[in-house]
Amino acid sequence: MGPDWYCNEAIPGTVKVEVEVLAQTENTLAFRPPLLGFGTDHIIVIPTQHVPSLLDLPDDLAGELLTTLKKVAAWAVDQYGGCQVLTTLGNEQHNKHLHWHVAVGDGVARFVPGG
Amino acid sequence: MGPDWYCNEAIPGTVKVEVEVLAQTENTLAFRPPLLGFGTDHIIVIPTQHVPSLLDLPDDLAGELLTTLKKVAAWAVDQYGGCQVLTTLGNEQHNKHLHWHVAVGDGVARFVPGG
Repeated sequence: MGPDWYCNEAIPGTVKVEVEVLAQTENTLAFRPPLLGFGTDHIIVIPTQHVPSLLDLPDDLAGELLTTLKKVAAWAVDQYGGCQVLTTLGNEQHNKHLHWHVAVGDGVARFVPGG
Repeated sequence: MGPDWYCNEAIPGTVKVEVEVLAQTENTLAFRPPLLGFGTDHIIVIPTQHVPSLLDLPDDLAGELLTTLKKVAAWAVDQYGGCQVLTTLGNEQHNKHLHWHVAVGDGVARFVPGG
């Protein structure tokens, strides 16, 4: 896995791994990654152009990305009753390509009170 | 705590609890809630008008909310090195007023592999 798995492997056209695409627009992609250990289901939503993090998201791409994110979130609520929409920044962000997690069920990240 | 703590108590003008405001625009608010157990630090970002969830966020408010969210996230990265930006929907959303968590350090929600 390179420094940007999304650009290097996941985005169609440069794909080296199997990803299951759930939604796609001109500049965004939603897919189910081939990772284990993320529970019931887990969808990743990304801009297909390289955007390092949420802080770098251009305004003219933000609306399109939000539309895809809302579409996937609505689907997850319909399928599973609820979901969590999450991104990370700085030292909490392990892959430096903006990616939103849409997590459901036992794949949802949990706050650990007092943790 | 009523069914919508944000509308009922947290938004200035109807505030019944002390919240520490970090950022504010005409239609958005970022504040540190008076809750315990959320770790190092924890900021909530909301639209001040009632929006039930991310799925209901109007396009004309999305940009302003994203701007506030990015401002708080940038501050959190600067202060703490990184953060997590998170919202919930459906049965994962306990308060039915759209709210983004900006969590840092030991307050970050964690995926529990295989959990």
